[in-house]
Amino acid sequence: MLKKYEYQSLGKAELQQLVARNTDPNNSIQEVVQDIIQQVRVQGDTVLREYAAKFDKVQLDKLFLDEEDIDELATTIHRDQQRALEIAFQNIHRFHSTQLKRERTVETMPGVKCWREIRPIEKVGLYIPGGSAVLPSTLLMLGIPARIAGCKEIVVCSPPQSNGKINGFVAYCLKLLNIKRIYLVGGAQAVAAMAFGTQSIPKVDKIFGPGNQFVTKAKSIIQGLTNVSIDMPAGPSEVLVIADETANPAFVAADLLAQAEHGIDSQAVLVATSPALVDAVNIELETQLMVLPRKELASKAIENSYAVIVSNLQEAIQFSNEYAPEHLILETDQWESLTRHINNAGSVFLGHLTPESAGDYASGTNHTLPTSGYARSYSGVSVDSFVKKITFQHINETGLQQIGSTVEILAELEGLHAHKNAISIRNK
Amino acid sequence: MLKKYEYQSLGKAELQQLVARNTDPNNSIQEVVQDIIQQVRVQGDTVLREYAAKFDKVQLDKLFLDEEDIDELATTIHRDQQRALEIAFQNIHRFHSTQLKRERTVETMPGVKCWREIRPIEKVGLYIPGGSAVLPSTLLMLGIPARIAGCKEIVVCSPPQSNGKINGFVAYCLKLLNIKRIYLVGGAQAVAAMAFGTQSIPKVDKIFGPGNQFVTKAKSIIQGLTNVSIDMPAGPSEVLVIADETANPAFVAADLLAQAEHGIDSQAVLVATSPALVDAVNIELETQLMVLPRKELASKAIENSYAVIVSNLQEAIQFSNEYAPEHLILETDQWESLTRHINNAGSVFLGHLTPESAGDYASGTNHTLPTSGYARSYSGVSVDSFVKKITFQHINETGLQQIGSTVEILAELEGLHAHKNAISIRNK
Repeated sequence: MLKKYEYQSLGKAELQQLVARNTDPNNSIQEVVQDIIQQVRVQGDTVLREYAAKFDKVQLDKLFLDEEDIDELATTIHRDQQRALEIAFQNIHRFHSTQLKRERTVETMPGVKCWREIRPIEKVGLYIPGGSAVLPSTLLMLGIPARIAGCKEIVVCSPPQSNGKINGFVAYCLKLLNIKRIYLVGGAQAVAAMAFGTQSIPKVDKIFGPGNQFVTKAKSIIQGLTNVSIDMPAGPSEVLVIADETANPAFVAADLLAQAEHGIDSQAVLVATSPALVDAVNIELETQLMVLPRKELASKAIENSYAVIVSNLQEAIQFSNEYAPEHLILETDQWESLTRHINNAGSVFLGHLTPESAGDYASGTNHTLPTSGYARSYSGVSVDSFVKKITFQHINETGLQQIGSTVEILAELEGLHAHKNAISIRNK
Repeated sequence: MLKKYEYQSLGKAELQQLVARNTDPNNSIQEVVQDIIQQVRVQGDTVLREYAAKFDKVQLDKLFLDEEDIDELATTIHRDQQRALEIAFQNIHRFHSTQLKRERTVETMPGVKCWREIRPIEKVGLYIPGGSAVLPSTLLMLGIPARIAGCKEIVVCSPPQSNGKINGFVAYCLKLLNIKRIYLVGGAQAVAAMAFGTQSIPKVDKIFGPGNQFVTKAKSIIQGLTNVSIDMPAGPSEVLVIADETANPAFVAADLLAQAEHGIDSQAVLVATSPALVDAVNIELETQLMVLPRKELASKAIENSYAVIVSNLQEAIQFSNEYAPEHLILETDQWESLTRHINNAGSVFLGHLTPESAGDYASGTNHTLPTSGYARSYSGVSVDSFVKKITFQHINETGLQQIGSTVEILAELEGLHAHKNAISIRNK
């Protein structure tokens, strides 16, 4: 049952409270994670084996699986499952392959040419959550843009199953991506291993991927501790559904529950143009919850969520921009006129037939998205996340004459005489 | 005098040591900065006034200057200085205005349309170092891409001079940028004020700008503490110059010194194809140092720097890619054939007539660049840094039929039944 709030009667402070999510939820685990990072840094592979025994309940001889193992595991899944992964691969590849664009050279003054060139980040680390939950889709969402970017080394870490292997779905995705090795390391220790390198596991330049609170904390710590960067800070997943009288309450409820089943800290927010619509959705929630395998989780997440009643769709978008949702679904016939007013969101799903789960798996867009209000300043993962843009410039004699005195004056006024001299000595 | 190393006789560990820069230099100031952040968070404007009295030696009635003050200060500078700032403005604007591109819609399957749209980050905070050093160029380098991106609110903080004002150069740049207010706050307290907001100073979504070690530490702390993001971690500035027999030792020395005058922790690395060239540059360094106002600083920075002797330009680029310099200058006739081999660098200056100082001020490229090896995974500031890219998708009936079973199979294999149901309920 979703709690109800009326948008127009919310004060500024109440509104702030409502859109706030935990920005620093896990200080309690800080010390645990710091210790794991330190152990991995000093001991390398040895302690990774100990953690595998302790956390994953498995004795590992080697810390990775190679091509032969992967090939074998990949054959264990059904043909229709392989086919579904292939279609997802194709759609994600198709969408992401349009994201890299050559840029033109700009002659800012006669003889002064400036441009940017794209280079892949050479070594990237992908963390794929595993264990009880199995997330081959995340491997596709990170591996495909890494391949398109042209990253030289793609290091994949995922926790081993109790048999010391990975499941066949992940194996099949590795084959689709032409990645020939996977490291059997999970949790904070995987992040530490990729940040510092161990005997088996290469150090990378940037670490990607979602994970539990230990993984998230480890990413945030290594970002401050090393010059390894991360894709984005991550919190619990969330959806905001905007619905008006044209919405089908059953569809709305299904979308809220798809979010809620992720975990009890997931938020599923409904913004509706009438109290009656919220009531109708609440009835659907009850019905649909009953048959869900993860109903315990999902019903707790729904209790942590809420509905906001607005007087029109403009107000709905206003609230959504305040909230800055990871996922935003517009279940209204009016979606086309609303999109340009959306300022803060990770990924947006338009109309009655575009559920979030399409984008979670297979429509082509990425599912690694900013949560917890980070959509105000972060974009989701894309090919952009796997490249750098380097600026280049070339100045010829004409250019140096054109720009020389400007640089000399500016260097002088900032009191940087050697900067000035680098021009003057060439103009002699 | 630059120390000399031979590239081919460096072992792997020595090489690692040589290219390493301080990734966590300032743990000693951690507590001081944490305290400042906490004070600003709790006390707001009151403590900002106290810090102004303590650090900037000035009593401030109000914490900002408005349009009238800015106009007045802007008239105090010479016409040729105004003109130089205008030319820099034009060139930077010209280069940066090509960086935002509309992307096309991709129909990944019939009826499944996906695209990205660009949105400005609404509220950005620009930190402009001030006090003894005066950096109007940084205001242009951050303000211009923010304007092009279309950011709604641009909050500028800079420490006040002892007269409670800012200098005329910064004022003139504010006018060029059409920014009508500047907040008189410096150091870690400025970062904290923009991260949390105070009575006078608005909270922002992302904080940009260089600064001393207090500012840098504050940026790194608030990044972990809030959902405010930052442009990039920052360390001391650095240059790597690659020179062969076609290089002019006087130009090379001038470029190294332009870097060295920033501070004793600046690095100015020379990669040369012969020991004789290093000797010639060392002689020039001595000569040019003598007449520099900041020669004490610069000579210490040169002592902290070094030269690497390579047998050819390919080796030089190899070393440079290992080092991942903020600024890279290629002082060789062969620059054109080398550029495609450059993988890790912030900004690259090509040929004998392209000094770094051109790009520092006026050629058009940005001077806010990744230091300390971050060029392996970060790009410099650009219009990209001031926007988000939001993904949108729309699925029609045909699309839902096309993609439905794929999503259902994938949701099922990940054990997420509510995800599956969001499709099934629409396909009934």
